[in-house]
Amino acid sequence: MTCEKLSMLCDFYEFTMSNGYLKTGMYNRNTYFDVFFRAVPDKGGFAIAAGLEQAAEYIQQLRFSEKDIAFLRSKNIFDEQFLNYLKTFRFTGDVYAIPEGTPVFPNEPIMTVRAPAIEAQIIETFILLALNHQSLIATKANRIVRAAQGRAVLEFGSRRAQGGDGAVLGARAAYIGGCAGTSCTLADKLYGVPASGTMAHSWVQMFDSEYEAFKTYCKLYPNNATLLVDTYNTIQSGVPNAIKAFKNTGITTCAIRLDSGDISYLSKEARKLLDEAGLFDCKIVASNSLDEHLITDLIMQGAQIDVFGVGERLITAKSDPVFGGVYKLVAVEDDQGAIIPKIKVSENITKIPNPHFKELYRLFDNERGKALADELCLYNETIDETAPHTIFDPNAVWKTKTLTNFTAKALQVPIFKNGNLVYTLPDIEQIRTYCAEQVDTLWDEVKRFENPHTYYVDLSQKLWDIKQQLLKAEDDGNCLTASP
Amino acid sequence: MTCEKLSMLCDFYEFTMSNGYLKTGMYNRNTYFDVFFRAVPDKGGFAIAAGLEQAAEYIQQLRFSEKDIAFLRSKNIFDEQFLNYLKTFRFTGDVYAIPEGTPVFPNEPIMTVRAPAIEAQIIETFILLALNHQSLIATKANRIVRAAQGRAVLEFGSRRAQGGDGAVLGARAAYIGGCAGTSCTLADKLYGVPASGTMAHSWVQMFDSEYEAFKTYCKLYPNNATLLVDTYNTIQSGVPNAIKAFKNTGITTCAIRLDSGDISYLSKEARKLLDEAGLFDCKIVASNSLDEHLITDLIMQGAQIDVFGVGERLITAKSDPVFGGVYKLVAVEDDQGAIIPKIKVSENITKIPNPHFKELYRLFDNERGKALADELCLYNETIDETAPHTIFDPNAVWKTKTLTNFTAKALQVPIFKNGNLVYTLPDIEQIRTYCAEQVDTLWDEVKRFENPHTYYVDLSQKLWDIKQQLLKAEDDGNCLTASP
Repeated sequence: MTCEKLSMLCDFYEFTMSNGYLKTGMYNRNTYFDVFFRAVPDKGGFAIAAGLEQAAEYIQQLRFSEKDIAFLRSKNIFDEQFLNYLKTFRFTGDVYAIPEGTPVFPNEPIMTVRAPAIEAQIIETFILLALNHQSLIATKANRIVRAAQGRAVLEFGSRRAQGGDGAVLGARAAYIGGCAGTSCTLADKLYGVPASGTMAHSWVQMFDSEYEAFKTYCKLYPNNATLLVDTYNTIQSGVPNAIKAFKNTGITTCAIRLDSGDISYLSKEARKLLDEAGLFDCKIVASNSLDEHLITDLIMQGAQIDVFGVGERLITAKSDPVFGGVYKLVAVEDDQGAIIPKIKVSENITKIPNPHFKELYRLFDNERGKALADELCLYNETIDETAPHTIFDPNAVWKTKTLTNFTAKALQVPIFKNGNLVYTLPDIEQIRTYCAEQVDTLWDEVKRFENPHTYYVDLSQKLWDIKQQLLKAEDDGNCLTASP
Repeated sequence: MTCEKLSMLCDFYEFTMSNGYLKTGMYNRNTYFDVFFRAVPDKGGFAIAAGLEQAAEYIQQLRFSEKDIAFLRSKNIFDEQFLNYLKTFRFTGDVYAIPEGTPVFPNEPIMTVRAPAIEAQIIETFILLALNHQSLIATKANRIVRAAQGRAVLEFGSRRAQGGDGAVLGARAAYIGGCAGTSCTLADKLYGVPASGTMAHSWVQMFDSEYEAFKTYCKLYPNNATLLVDTYNTIQSGVPNAIKAFKNTGITTCAIRLDSGDISYLSKEARKLLDEAGLFDCKIVASNSLDEHLITDLIMQGAQIDVFGVGERLITAKSDPVFGGVYKLVAVEDDQGAIIPKIKVSENITKIPNPHFKELYRLFDNERGKALADELCLYNETIDETAPHTIFDPNAVWKTKTLTNFTAKALQVPIFKNGNLVYTLPDIEQIRTYCAEQVDTLWDEVKRFENPHTYYVDLSQKLWDIKQQLLKAEDDGNCLTASP
């Protein structure tokens, strides 16, 4: 979707609230909002952050056209003062975010926005949409790629995606998560995700015989032919015809694709036939409703598959298709610029957001290079790497751990300063490589699919103390405001 | 996503096949492709067709720009002849489709394309994407709306949608399926889906007290205020403060929104407090991870909810987020224009597509106006409504039923003729009304969620005979092509 349209890709309440902020004079008050999520999809041990590039482009280009404003005016609830304000709207705030491709954990600020109230509010919907969607798919892709244990995984799902952006940005996120390529041509043209593809069943059906279809294809594409062998009967017809076509055209870089039936059995039988024909380098591609669990199972069964094509279950993250990122007010500035932390109370203590403007550190073990824990601190706190450092579990404060010989890395980086993009957006290959490197810093126990170890996201003592004070104050305040 | 970009939103194999069709001289051969699906999501009794408008716009506007062609050239596998062909590409074929909002069943052609091979192939990916996505969401929305039993359902999911199109076209499809509106402003601007919204928790947090936030909002929007009452404590603070704000500002068209906690309990308690305060017309909106099952359950519990706001579970169709529409070659024309039916064999007989160019009829009982069955016929078959008409189940041919006093309505209508759009796209209100009317023609047994009655999609005797002949011929053919 193009940027000129995105201004209205905004929940209507952002406008009603913004109109109110302007009218009450609160519009210019600096606010701090955190984007964070509460649970990893598929009960995984971590997620992969993605979508920052699209969020940054949106923020940079956000303007309201005459048509947008005329549309809002037609609703008859907005002040002319507000509609005028939108005419010259620019984002003027600061944004900090965790780079794309980074493993992230629940309750961590993936992004922090510091901006005047209206600006911070208006960008909410799209920011969440961009980060939620691509983090969802990058996380799912990374699971599938890990299941494939080094075999290539191709993203094949455009036709089952939830809309055009779902297909194209989904392919982008899948590549960040570790896929080797996509079937989606536009994802290649726009984002450099390598696109490939050869034939559908219709190609085979268009010819008088399967062999004719295969031979013709091999002659047309002598450098690389992947033949789809299940149009009629994979073992009796498809594979023998493919072998005959490869042999008769002398093609050597070649593959067959299995798209139906018992993939485990068929791949083993096909491998035997190919090897008997001396086609040891002929690859086998499988593509039939696959996901991380089926791939794990196929490998356990000894299936002879070199490349997995994964469609609908990746592009929609079918087993758990929602990434639940939220956007919560964590602080406001007073007239003197002092930061006042804010909190939203919930009946469930683990659902209460961490208040205040914060810095997020990842603590790495210097000996093994592994990530030990993350620590949420106040924005102006630093961690002294030269002294032993004690962290504690915010959900079980008596559990402590003292670290020595560690490195503390701040995870958020500045993206916008005073409305200017100050971040050099990395290219997709850099993001993909960075993702693989960072996933390598996680213990295997965090990466497993079943009951992964819960990685610690701890609070500094100062942040913990402030949170407790706020909870107590809010509780007192409630009783007061609730009385008649 | 804008149309100029969509040309490359195409699986790469459409281009490799098309290049081959041109080089082998098959490009101009007329082909027939059916779009159909094999199973209703969520094991439902029917689906709602949607997405035709976007598919039609795509077909009408499909062109390849110089940049598109340069991109394909850079792949070094396409002939200049083919790249030249793309320069003047226009869709010149015919398209027939079932109008948006129609209930549809497995194995029915939702769309049929008759076009030269390349043209039919190139539009495959986007056609499937458009129909699959919106049919998925319209189907899910209709389930949720039916569960709400007349109470309004609002679509609130933009921030959790799978990309921008997922949000906007998802809101469009949700409205077709029966939702009363959306939170997505762009869906209103582009498609006329009524957008609305009032406040998030951040509005409440921005004020010194909850009451102040509520009172200010009521003064700003005296004609309609929905106050979010769960920022601190719904019953102790939120509802009392809302009542005070409504009373003190004299607002009468008002509502409260519950967004967390035990919605059933809270709605009953809130209703009591509102009624005690004389606010009998104040509505209660609930919005917390709802879907058709939770709504059914809330209503069974006597929850006092007037409006349901449904987010992530609708916009992603969370419980079953894939609509599995496929695009299969069913016939080709020979040099004399005779139609040669084609079939793709599968090991599972129910997965074998119905071959040939077909007409799909829905048979209505004239007495009660109910849909009795659908019947797939050859394209040139008609059904005589004046005589008793016997249909049979293609999966159990001995099961027959003889109809009298019925009406046979052809479901597909012409959309394109010789590349020209001949269909007047209905506006969204018409589609939504048509959908509700057509769902009313289904028996309750088809509409229930648990084990719905399987609606019959039968084949005419002529189509059945041709299918059997083809299966036998293909089986013989395979053995021949498979022999060395």
